[in-house]
Amino acid sequence: MAVFDVRGIVDELGSLRDAWRDSQHRPRAPHAREFPSRTVLGHVVEQIKGALFPMRLGPEDLRHDGENLYVGYTLNCALQSLFTQAQLELRYQARHDEPDPAAIERRARDAVDSFAAALPGVRRLLDQDVLAAYQGDPAATSVDEVLLCYPGILALIHYRLAHLLYLAGLRLLPRIVTEIAHSQTGIDIHPGAQIGASCFIDHGTGVVIGETARLGNGVRIYQAVTLGAKHFPEDAEGNLKKGLLRHPIVEDDVVIYAGATILGRVTLGKGAVIGGNVWVTEDVAPGAALSQASLRSAPRHE
Amino acid sequence: MAVFDVRGIVDELGSLRDAWRDSQHRPRAPHAREFPSRTVLGHVVEQIKGALFPMRLGPEDLRHDGENLYVGYTLNCALQSLFTQAQLELRYQARHDEPDPAAIERRARDAVDSFAAALPGVRRLLDQDVLAAYQGDPAATSVDEVLLCYPGILALIHYRLAHLLYLAGLRLLPRIVTEIAHSQTGIDIHPGAQIGASCFIDHGTGVVIGETARLGNGVRIYQAVTLGAKHFPEDAEGNLKKGLLRHPIVEDDVVIYAGATILGRVTLGKGAVIGGNVWVTEDVAPGAALSQASLRSAPRHE
Amino acid sequence: MAVFDVRGIVDELGSLRDAWRDSQHRPRAPHAREFPSRTVLGHVVEQIKGALFPMRLGPEDLRHDGENLYVGYTLNCALQSLFTQAQLELRYQARHDEPDPAAIERRARDAVDSFAAALPGVRRLLDQDVLAAYQGDPAATSVDEVLLCYPGILALIHYRLAHLLYLAGLRLLPRIVTEIAHSQTGIDIHPGAQIGASCFIDHGTGVVIGETARLGNGVRIYQAVTLGAKHFPEDAEGNLKKGLLRHPIVEDDVVIYAGATILGRVTLGKGAVIGGNVWVTEDVAPGAALSQASLRSAPRHE
Amino acid sequence: MAVFDVRGIVDELGSLRDAWRDSQHRPRAPHAREFPSRTVLGHVVEQIKGALFPMRLGPEDLRHDGENLYVGYTLNCALQSLFTQAQLELRYQARHDEPDPAAIERRARDAVDSFAAALPGVRRLLDQDVLAAYQGDPAATSVDEVLLCYPGILALIHYRLAHLLYLAGLRLLPRIVTEIAHSQTGIDIHPGAQIGASCFIDHGTGVVIGETARLGNGVRIYQAVTLGAKHFPEDAEGNLKKGLLRHPIVEDDVVIYAGATILGRVTLGKGAVIGGNVWVTEDVAPGAALSQASLRSAPRHE
Amino acid sequence: MAVFDVRGIVDELGSLRDAWRDSQHRPRAPHAREFPSRTVLGHVVEQIKGALFPMRLGPEDLRHDGENLYVGYTLNCALQSLFTQAQLELRYQARHDEPDPAAIERRARDAVDSFAAALPGVRRLLDQDVLAAYQGDPAATSVDEVLLCYPGILALIHYRLAHLLYLAGLRLLPRIVTEIAHSQTGIDIHPGAQIGASCFIDHGTGVVIGETARLGNGVRIYQAVTLGAKHFPEDAEGNLKKGLLRHPIVEDDVVIYAGATILGRVTLGKGAVIGGNVWVTEDVAPGAALSQASLRSAPRHE
Amino acid sequence: MAVFDVRGIVDELGSLRDAWRDSQHRPRAPHAREFPSRTVLGHVVEQIKGALFPMRLGPEDLRHDGENLYVGYTLNCALQSLFTQAQLELRYQARHDEPDPAAIERRARDAVDSFAAALPGVRRLLDQDVLAAYQGDPAATSVDEVLLCYPGILALIHYRLAHLLYLAGLRLLPRIVTEIAHSQTGIDIHPGAQIGASCFIDHGTGVVIGETARLGNGVRIYQAVTLGAKHFPEDAEGNLKKGLLRHPIVEDDVVIYAGATILGRVTLGKGAVIGGNVWVTEDVAPGAALSQASLRSAPRHE
Repeated sequence: MAVFDVRGIVDELGSLRDAWRDSQHRPRAPHAREFPSRTVLGHVVEQIKGALFPMRLGPEDLRHDGENLYVGYTLNCALQSLFTQAQLELRYQARHDEPDPAAIERRARDAVDSFAAALPGVRRLLDQDVLAAYQGDPAATSVDEVLLCYPGILALIHYRLAHLLYLAGLRLLPRIVTEIAHSQTGIDIHPGAQIGASCFIDHGTGVVIGETARLGNGVRIYQAVTLGAKHFPEDAEGNLKKGLLRHPIVEDDVVIYAGATILGRVTLGKGAVIGGNVWVTEDVAPGAALSQASLRSAPRHE
Repeated sequence: MAVFDVRGIVDELGSLRDAWRDSQHRPRAPHAREFPSRTVLGHVVEQIKGALFPMRLGPEDLRHDGENLYVGYTLNCALQSLFTQAQLELRYQARHDEPDPAAIERRARDAVDSFAAALPGVRRLLDQDVLAAYQGDPAATSVDEVLLCYPGILALIHYRLAHLLYLAGLRLLPRIVTEIAHSQTGIDIHPGAQIGASCFIDHGTGVVIGETARLGNGVRIYQAVTLGAKHFPEDAEGNLKKGLLRHPIVEDDVVIYAGATILGRVTLGKGAVIGGNVWVTEDVAPGAALSQASLRSAPRHE
Repeated sequence: MAVFDVRGIVDELGSLRDAWRDSQHRPRAPHAREFPSRTVLGHVVEQIKGALFPMRLGPEDLRHDGENLYVGYTLNCALQSLFTQAQLELRYQARHDEPDPAAIERRARDAVDSFAAALPGVRRLLDQDVLAAYQGDPAATSVDEVLLCYPGILALIHYRLAHLLYLAGLRLLPRIVTEIAHSQTGIDIHPGAQIGASCFIDHGTGVVIGETARLGNGVRIYQAVTLGAKHFPEDAEGNLKKGLLRHPIVEDDVVIYAGATILGRVTLGKGAVIGGNVWVTEDVAPGAALSQASLRSAPRHE
Repeated sequence: MAVFDVRGIVDELGSLRDAWRDSQHRPRAPHAREFPSRTVLGHVVEQIKGALFPMRLGPEDLRHDGENLYVGYTLNCALQSLFTQAQLELRYQARHDEPDPAAIERRARDAVDSFAAALPGVRRLLDQDVLAAYQGDPAATSVDEVLLCYPGILALIHYRLAHLLYLAGLRLLPRIVTEIAHSQTGIDIHPGAQIGASCFIDHGTGVVIGETARLGNGVRIYQAVTLGAKHFPEDAEGNLKKGLLRHPIVEDDVVIYAGATILGRVTLGKGAVIGGNVWVTEDVAPGAALSQASLRSAPRHE
Repeated sequence: MAVFDVRGIVDELGSLRDAWRDSQHRPRAPHAREFPSRTVLGHVVEQIKGALFPMRLGPEDLRHDGENLYVGYTLNCALQSLFTQAQLELRYQARHDEPDPAAIERRARDAVDSFAAALPGVRRLLDQDVLAAYQGDPAATSVDEVLLCYPGILALIHYRLAHLLYLAGLRLLPRIVTEIAHSQTGIDIHPGAQIGASCFIDHGTGVVIGETARLGNGVRIYQAVTLGAKHFPEDAEGNLKKGLLRHPIVEDDVVIYAGATILGRVTLGKGAVIGGNVWVTEDVAPGAALSQASLRSAPRHE
Repeated sequence: MAVFDVRGIVDELGSLRDAWRDSQHRPRAPHAREFPSRTVLGHVVEQIKGALFPMRLGPEDLRHDGENLYVGYTLNCALQSLFTQAQLELRYQARHDEPDPAAIERRARDAVDSFAAALPGVRRLLDQDVLAAYQGDPAATSVDEVLLCYPGILALIHYRLAHLLYLAGLRLLPRIVTEIAHSQTGIDIHPGAQIGASCFIDHGTGVVIGETARLGNGVRIYQAVTLGAKHFPEDAEGNLKKGLLRHPIVEDDVVIYAGATILGRVTLGKGAVIGGNVWVTEDVAPGAALSQASLRSAPRHE
C-alpha cells in the first residue's frame, strides 16, 4: 500500500500561483472564478446550431410541428447563457479598471441583442455554404450529407457565430467557439476574419485563416492551406503591434489547393487559382493560375 | 435583468427553413426526423470495435471467460441498431420516389447481413495493419501500444467498417463513420477508397485519401499526404460528374513521406518511394524514389 | 422484423483471437484485462491539470480560499489512480518474464513519487510557455486566452506530464497521454522528446515532434512542422533498430514556419529561422534564415 | 480467478420463459418489447410538472420571461411521448384481438387530447390543494414549502394526472404514474379514485386509497389511513369480480386521523371526524366524531 | 402522425399562474427563480455525510491516507453551496419586505458558521445512535451494517443536520433535508423536533415525529409510531396558531412499539414502555408499561 | 464573499474517527475501503432482474431473438461483480481473525455458484407470486401490470435474491439488497425470513417481516402488517441473544389484513384470517378468523 505525501507539493504549487498572480498584477484577495466557461459556451453553440437547423442538428425526436416551440425555447435559454458569459468576459476585460456593473450589463445585453438579430443572416449564409460544398465536391451525395458530415461546414458554423461575437467587441468568447471547432476539425479560423458567402473548405485539416484575412464570395479552400501573416512588427518597447492588417485578401471565386501558403497582406485577385503546396507572398492577378510547376519554370523563362 | 425577445427571430428562421425546403423540393407536411443519427452510429462503431477486440477495446472489466458472451450480445445489439439506421438512410435515398417499405427493409437486411459476414475478414486485416505499424515504427514498443494509441489504426478501423457499408450501397452511414475518425485523428479516408492489407499511416494528421483511390498491400503513408483528384470534369449542364475514377492507384509496398501530394488517376508503381512534400501528378515507375531534391535537380539535367 | 444470427461470426472471431494470441505467445488461460485504461488516464490528466491551474482548469465553482484543499485532495486521488495504472503497465512490460509483484509495486511507487515531485517544475515551465505564446502572437489578447484556448498549450501540458512518466521508465502511459492531446489538437509530440522552456506552438495542426528530438528554450513552431527521422536502420535480422538518436536538435530561439520538414539528427543552430514548407535534412548554422526562395535561388548562383 | 459457467442457467431460464409465455397464450415468434416504459413515463410526468409549475418545478435556471416558451416546448415534447406510450398500452390491451393500428392511433390521440385539455383544470385543483395544506398545518411556513416539500402534494399531482389517463381508458400508464409517487411518498392512491378539491394528506406514509373510493372537497387525511375494500366477491368461475364499487365514499370536509381504516362501500358523512387507529366498516353520520375511546365505550352503554 | 396544438393550453396555464401570483401578492415583473434547490441541497447532504463518515459514506476509492484531504475539500465545497442556498432562503423569507442584501449575507454566513461548528457534535451523536441500534437489534450483525443499511440511521443523519439549520433560523432548507430522508425511509421527523443521544428507530416506515416533540436519550421507536399533535387551536381570524408546543415529551429510555400513537403535549416518563398500536393522549408515568391489553382490561376493573 | 475556515473542524472530525476506530478495535494503519458497495450491489440486482425477466425488466430495446445472448452476458457480468462483493464481505467478516485469502475466495465462489444455480427456482417462484397478485386483486388488469407496478413484487424479487445470499452465509450483502427494496416500497423483509410460493403483499407500505419468520404458500398480506418479535432475551452479559427463533410461523393460505401486528414465535394456522389492526401474540387456530370486533367482544363473553 503506497502513501503519497502531497503536502509539500501543494505548498510549492501555491507559492507558484502567488508568484504568477503577482507577476500579472492580480489581487490575492478572496475571489471566485468569474471567468467564461468553455463547457457552457460549447453548450450554447450546440443550442444555437439546433435553433438554426432544428430537424438536422436539434434533438433527434423533434417533429416538424414542434420546430418553432423548440427554436423559441432553445434560443431563450442560449441567449441567457450567452448574456451571462458575455458579462464574465467584459468584467475580465475591465479587470484592471474600476468595473461598472451597470455598464458591463448594458454592453453584454447589446452584444447578445446584435448576436441574436444576426442569426437569420447566418442561417442564410450557411445555406449557401452547404450548396457550395454540394456543388463543388463530386463525392457529395446530398446537401444533408454535407451539413451532417463535412468538417468544413462545422468550422464555418462556429466561425460565423464567433464572428458575430467578435463584432460585438468580445474576444475570449469567440475564440473559445472557434477553438472548439478547431479541435474537432483541424480547421483554425480566427473569429476576426471576414468570410463571404458560399465558402467551401474541403477536408480542411490544417487550414489556418488569420485574424485580418478577408475572403470574398465563392472561395474554395482545400486542406492545409494557410492564410497567414508574414512578419510581426514590434512597437518601440519591443512588443508586437496588435491589430495590424497582416493577412491576405482573397477575392471572389478564388480556389486555393491543398497545402498552399499565402502570407501577408497580399491580394489574390478574383477567380485566381492557387496550386497545391504553393508559397505566395505577393499579389496574384485576377484569373491567374499559380502552380509549383509554373513557379519553378517561371524563372527559367526569365 | 435582461429580457431578449426571440419571437421575431423565431419567425424569420422559420421562413428561411420553409424557403430552403421549397428549394430542395421537400414537403412541408408534418414529419418526424427520419434521418440517420451520428450519435447512434458512433455507438454502433464502438460496439463493433469492442466485438472485434474485446479484451482491448471492450468494457474494462471484461474477463477472458466472458468474451464470447460479450461479443455475441454486443453484435446482436449493434446489428439491430445498424439495421434501423440503414433503413433510415435507404428511406432518405428514396425520398423523391415512392418508397417501398418492404424493399427498403429487405435491402437494409442484406446490407447488415453482408456487413456482419465480413467482420472476421476485417479483424484479419486489422491484425495485419497493427503488425505493419509495429514493424514499421522504431518508436513502437508493443502491438498493444499500436492498437491503443496509434491514430492511424483508429482511422483504419473506421475506414474498414465504413467500406463494408459503402460496398452495401450505403453512402451517408459510411461517411459518418469515417468522419468520426477524421475528427479524432485528422485522417480523412473516403469510405469508397480501396485499401489492401498491412497498411501503416504514421502520425496521420492531414492525410486525405479520395473516394476512388486504390492502395495495394504494405503501403506506408506519413502525415499530411494527399491522394486527391486533379480536376473535376463537368457534364453538359455544368454539374460535376460524379463517380469518375479520379484518384491515384498506389501499388504494393509504396512509401509516401509526409506532406507529399499525389493528384489524379496516376499510378505509383510497386515499391516506389515518394519523398516528403513532393508534388506528383504523373505515374511513378515501380521502385523509383522521388524527392524534392531529385525533382528540382532533374530539370537542371535537361 | 429482421433476425441476425451472430453465432457463426462469434465463433469465427473467437478463432481469430486465439490465433492472434498464439502468434503473440500469450496464454489462453482465464485472465482479466490487466491493461492500462485510456479513460482512467484521461481523467488523471484532467485532475493534474486542475491541480496545476486550479482557478482556470479546476472546477468552475472553485473559489480562492478553497484552492489548497482542492489541490491537495485532487492530487491525492490522481496519484493513487496513476499508481494503479503504472502497476498495470509494469506488469504488462514484464508479461514474458516472471513478474515480481513487490518489485513492480516498488517501481510504480518510485515512478509516481518522481512524477509528483516534478509537478511544480512543470507548472513553472508552463507559465513560461504561456508567456511565450502571449508575447509571440499579435492576436493573443491575454494570458488567460492563451491558457484556455491555444491548442499548443494543451499539447505542451500533456507532453510535459507525459515526459515525466517517460523519464520514469513508462512507455504506454505517456503515449496515451500525448495521444489524447494529439486527438484534440492535431499536435503529435512523442513523450520522449526533450523540450526546453518558453516553447510556443501556434495553430499547431499537423505538427510532429519525434521521440529523440531535442529543443532548447524559446523555440517557436507553426502548424504542420515535422521534426522527424530520415530513415530507419535495421539490425541483422531485418528489424528496425529501436532507440537510435534519429530526430533533429533545435537550439534556443529557433523559429520554424508552417509546413517545414526537418528530418534526421541535424542541428538547427541558435536563432535560426526556417521558412514555411522548407525541407531540411542538413545542419543549419546559428542565426541563418532558410526559405523556399533562398533554397531555389541558391543553385542558380552556383 | 473464478469462472462461472452460465450456459445451463441461461437455458433453464429460457425454458421457464417459454413455459410462462405458453401459459399466457403469447406467441413465441420474434418480437420487440412493445410495452410502455416506466422510465419514459417518469420523464413525461416530470415534464408535465414543470409545465404546470414552471418557476418551482421547471428547470432551475428558468426565468420569468421564458416561461411560456418553456411550457409550450415542454408540453409539445411530453404529449408526443405520451402519445407513443398510449399507443403501446392500447396495442398491449388489444394483444389477444386483431389490433387495428389506425383505431389504436385514433384512440391514443383522443386520450392525449383530452389529457392535455384538462391540464389547466389540474393546475387549478392543485393550487387549492396547496392552499389547503398551508392552512391546515401549523408547521407549514409558506405555500412554496408545501409545494416543494410535502409528500401529499407530490402524491396528489401524480394522482390527478394519472386520473386523467384513467378516464381516457388507459390502465397501465396511470398505474405506473401513481406507483412512482407511491414509491417516493408511501402514499398509494389508485388512479381510479375520485378526489375533490382542496385535499390535504399530511405526512402520508402508508395511506391507501382504493380504486372506487370517492372523496369530496376539503377532505383531510393523515398518515396510514386506509380507504379500502372489505371483501372481494367472486364470479361463478371463482375469479374475483372486477370493477365493483367496493371502497368508501368520503363527503366534503371529512377529517380522518392517522391509522384509521375505513373498509367497504360505506359513507363518511359531511364534516365527520374519524379518530386515529379507528376501524370503520359502517356508515358514519355527517358531523359525527368517531374515536377509539367512543367505540370502546359505546358497547358498554348498550 | 398526430399534431397536438398546445397554444391554448399554454395561454390558459399562463393566466392561472398570473392569478396565483396575484393571490399571493407576488410581482409579475421579470424575475429569475431565486429559490433554494432540492437537487443542490441533496448534494450538500451527501457531501456532509461523506465528510462525517469518509470511509463508509465517502467515495468508494477513498483511502485512509487521503481522509483529511477529502474531508477538508468536501466541507469547503459543501459549506459554500449551503451558504448560497441559505441566502436564497433568507431572501425568500424577506420577500415581502425590503431585503437588505448585506444583512442577508451576514445572516447566511452566521448560519453556515454555526452549522459547521456543530458538525463534530453531530458525528458524536450519530456514533451513539449507531451503537444504540447495534445493541438494540438482535438481527444486527455489525455497526457497519447499521450505518450502511438501517433506514433509522439515515433518517437521524438527515434530521440532525436539518435541526442545525432549523436552529439557525432557516425553515425551507431543513425541511427539504428531512423530506429527502422521509422519501427514502418513510420516517418523517420534523427538523424542529429535539432528539437526544442514542436514539434507535427500527424499521421505521410510517414514523412521524412532530415539530415540537422532545425526546431524551436512549429512546427506542418502532415502525408506524406517531408523536403528533392532538388538535390545532385557531387564532381570532380563524388561522391556525403556529409555533405552539403541541407534541409529546418523551423522556430517557422510553420504548415505543410499532403503531403506537402519542398525541398532544403529554409526557412519557423515563423508562416507560408503550405497547404496539396503543393510543395515548395523556401522561404516562415513569417506568409504566402500556399495552392494548392493559388499556382494554383497565375499564373493566373500574 | 464568505470564507469558511474548515481546518479546526477537519481536525476534530479526524479525532472522532480515531476514537471510534479505537473503540471498535480497528487498526489505524493505512488501508483502503475494502467494504461492499451499495451502488454496485444495486446494479447487480438490476442485472439479475433483467436476466430473470429480460423482455420486461431488461433493456427497453431488447428483442426476442437476442434474449439468450443478453441473459448470458448479463449473468456473466453480474456474477463476477457479486463474486467481488462477496469476497469483500467475507474479508470484513473475518476482520478480527487472520484472514485466509484462498479460503475467502473459495467461500465466495461457492456462494456465487449456489446463488446462480438457484436463479431458475427464483424465477419459478416469482411467476407464482405474480399470478397470486393478479388473482388476488380485483384492481389488477394484467400480469404485466403486476410485474411492472406492484411494490409487493419488487419487494419479493429483492427478498428472494437476498435470501439466496443469506443461505450462502452472507449477511451484509443480502441486507443491502432488501433495504434497497425497503426504501422503494416501504416493505421491510429480512433476508433471513422464509417465504413460500404464491405470496401476495398488497400496497405494502409499512409491512415488516422479521428474520426468523416462516411463511407457507399462498399467504396474502396487506399494508402495515408486522410479523415481529415480542421481546429480546439477553445473555449473561446483558447482550441481546442473537439468532433465537422469535418471529411468527404463518401457515399456507393465511390472510393478514392491513395494520395487523403478530408478535413472537406464534403460529397462524392454515387458512386463518387476521383482521385489520388486530394485535396477536398467541397461536391462532387453522381456519380461524380474528378481527378487532371478535377480540373486543370475546372478553365480554368471559
